Amino acid sequence: MNTLFLPELREMLADSNRAELEEFCDALNAGRTAEFMEGLTDDEIWKVLQYAPPPRRAEIFGYFEHDRKVAIFESQPPKEVAEIVVETPADDRVDLLQDLPTQRVDEILRLLPVEDRRDIRRLQSYEEGTAGALMTTEVAMLAENMTVGEALQELSKQSEELETIYYLFVVDDNQLLRGIVSTRQLVSALSKPSLTLGEMMESDVVAVLVTDDQEVVAEKVERFNLLAIPVIDSGRQLLGIITHDDVIDVVREELAEDAQRIAAVAPLEQDFLRVPLWTLSWKRGLWLTILFFAALLTAFALRHYEEELATYAWLVAFIPLIISAGGNSGSQSATLVITAMTSGHVKFRDWPEVLRREVIVSLILGVFLSLIGLSVAIFIAPSHHDAMVIPLTLVSVIVCGCLCGATLPIIFKRLGLDPAMMSNPFVAGIVDILGIVIYINIARALLG
Amino acid sequence: MNTLFLPELREMLADSNRAELEEFCDALNAGRTAEFMEGLTDDEIWKVLQYAPPPRRAEIFGYFEHDRKVAIFESQPPKEVAEIVVETPADDRVDLLQDLPTQRVDEILRLLPVEDRRDIRRLQSYEEGTAGALMTTEVAMLAENMTVGEALQELSKQSEELETIYYLFVVDDNQLLRGIVSTRQLVSALSKPSLTLGEMMESDVVAVLVTDDQEVVAEKVERFNLLAIPVIDSGRQLLGIITHDDVIDVVREELAEDAQRIAAVAPLEQDFLRVPLWTLSWKRGLWLTILFFAALLTAFALRHYEEELATYAWLVAFIPLIISAGGNSGSQSATLVITAMTSGHVKFRDWPEVLRREVIVSLILGVFLSLIGLSVAIFIAPSHHDAMVIPLTLVSVIVCGCLCGATLPIIFKRLGLDPAMMSNPFVAGIVDILGIVIYINIARALLG
Repeated sequence: MNTLFLPELREMLADSNRAELEEFCDALNAGRTAEFMEGLTDDEIWKVLQYAPPPRRAEIFGYFEHDRKVAIFESQPPKEVAEIVVETPADDRVDLLQDLPTQRVDEILRLLPVEDRRDIRRLQSYEEGTAGALMTTEVAMLAENMTVGEALQELSKQSEELETIYYLFVVDDNQLLRGIVSTRQLVSALSKPSLTLGEMMESDVVAVLVTDDQEVVAEKVERFNLLAIPVIDSGRQLLGIITHDDVIDVVREELAEDAQRIAAVAPLEQDFLRVPLWTLSWKRGLWLTILFFAALLTAFALRHYEEELATYAWLVAFIPLIISAGGNSGSQSATLVITAMTSGHVKFRDWPEVLRREVIVSLILGVFLSLIGLSVAIFIAPSHHDAMVIPLTLVSVIVCGCLCGATLPIIFKRLGLDPAMMSNPFVAGIVDILGIVIYINIARALLG
Repeated sequence: MNTLFLPELREMLADSNRAELEEFCDALNAGRTAEFMEGLTDDEIWKVLQYAPPPRRAEIFGYFEHDRKVAIFESQPPKEVAEIVVETPADDRVDLLQDLPTQRVDEILRLLPVEDRRDIRRLQSYEEGTAGALMTTEVAMLAENMTVGEALQELSKQSEELETIYYLFVVDDNQLLRGIVSTRQLVSALSKPSLTLGEMMESDVVAVLVTDDQEVVAEKVERFNLLAIPVIDSGRQLLGIITHDDVIDVVREELAEDAQRIAAVAPLEQDFLRVPLWTLSWKRGLWLTILFFAALLTAFALRHYEEELATYAWLVAFIPLIISAGGNSGSQSATLVITAMTSGHVKFRDWPEVLRREVIVSLILGVFLSLIGLSVAIFIAPSHHDAMVIPLTLVSVIVCGCLCGATLPIIFKRLGLDPAMMSNPFVAGIVDILGIVIYINIARALLG
């Protein structure tokens, strides 16, 4: 966050200095203008934005973080919000409205021109994770018989509204996709202005179906090095385009999911801090249970060899189980925190929130797994009383595991070390030792 | 791979049917043309390409896989190779030449125009992972006093050579970056052809230093939604640009490294199948050793409680150690195979190669860790002979762990299941049980 201009900005606002505020909104790259405003309150940001003409206002607004944009849309006057919504790219504004209360959405939609409203409603109808949900509808559709000269004139007129002007899509009267012409081709054909799009277009177009999975979209855009890919329906009607910046987001999401899976967590498909605790518990519990049963089998294996292990008490059979329960839950926490930090969803200042959630989740998981553990221990332990050692140990070990797993990455990050690289070996080590210490001491207390 | 046209293509080649081969090279999207040729041998591909004019030839060639391109450049006549090199974007051709034998590189460079040679040499001088190593030098540099009309004319002339025509960079006589104009602005200003670039340019340019880390590049391109970002030196001289497609590669690389780190492997920074076995052993051994020492501590912890664990034999202390050694090496293998498959570096057909490498690496790791294990066991085991149980078990467990870890993801993928999601719990479970079985049986054999 850049706090350089904050005092000046607040001063300008105080004596509502129109000239300087207009200058501020206009002078810099829109992205950087937003950076300089990050330190302001939502209301202050809104006030400053009013000094920019609507298109520029929407452009600057587009660079704030998603959650901030949602908060502002919730708190500011619907009429002013609607002004920005009109100027916001079709795909982005749908993402924002999605996270607003329905009643608020209705207030805003009511203030939009009918075609925008219809456009938003249609985009909202596509399922998350499909091409339809990623696409924008502001695309240059031109007729085959148009000449280079006419096409450039047309682009010149439309360029304000279009998401990208770098591909022109040639369609027939029914909006069926016939071919594609790049602005590069158009520019290099300047010398022959009477050439028609039909004559120069590439008719072998790489496109995706509106129902295709977003990973298919990413795969094609990368393989063919596209700036944008057209989205069509099964009848080849052109519905919209997906631009390269949305593809980078897909790639990030896809790989974050992989990393989570590697730690045996069902993909969250949401920001770490925004998943409901029950969902999170389920997504983690599912795989943690599988791991737990695998560890149970180990316990049975050890148990099976008890004759060989002669004098070993029944506790031995549970050692690997307890260690892996702690280790697995710990590395789940670590992986989730690490991927969340990588994708910027968790900052150092979030650590109290992270811990609060970890405590709750680890208790839910611990209690659940303890019940399974108890139901097994009852058959192995000499008495029901003795069997209680197992569930008590499991709850404590799993809570410790999760807290270590969630805390260490944040601490390492704070120390300027790489959390992804440092965390897991340490989590494993600490949790293993803690596991044994807790196990033996609980056993002592109960059996001693 | 698309085998649809292979027979036809081979026939055309057989009776070297110029008309049809030229038609084939020209009809489709270049990327798709390459896809249809993937089934051919390197020599056949080369023969077909000769029927396309050099620029188109280079365009199609650009869509083959990196390793294939390198193989072709190694085997084909330098003169013809040089023709393609001249037409290949500056950043891509450097990546290719990097992987060729120096002597071959010299043969090719000797055949290039002097300015291309100088350009390649300069790009080669930048360190891997920096902006300099990613950038291309084919960028539109124009003067401030140029008008919209002149700029379009200039673009029209240059558009063949330029990597992207969508940003124009305004520089002074010393090539210092003064500002940026997008082709979008240019097009929307068509109606005022006498406007100069200086009047319309955005002078607050987002740029990176040639020495910046590639992750800084990705971060800026994503935050500011750029199609390309200019690369400057400390004196603001414009050296080149980095385009969005290279940024996606950086993001992929960055996140694959994260996933590897999560499994406690130092990032490979190369394709899985191309890392030298010693490097791979080191990158894995480093962290596996840390994990191993952590596990040793667990063994000591258990050992420390031996009075409490009363009648337990000395073998007990090593149970967690052996299990985690197997589990950790197994999940390393799994993670490496999974990320390699995600990024397309490992296909099902590669499994024999994967296993061959796993066997060697796991033996290296196993023997090394066994020595540490032995040196500890000697102090704990009643006799040197008894102590041998530990190293023998460790080698077997680690080899099993690596083979399970490397095989299961490939099998799951083949079965149409998600390897990333399925592998690790299974690897953990199987390796844990195997570990115990192996441990006890070796102990029986030696001590029984």
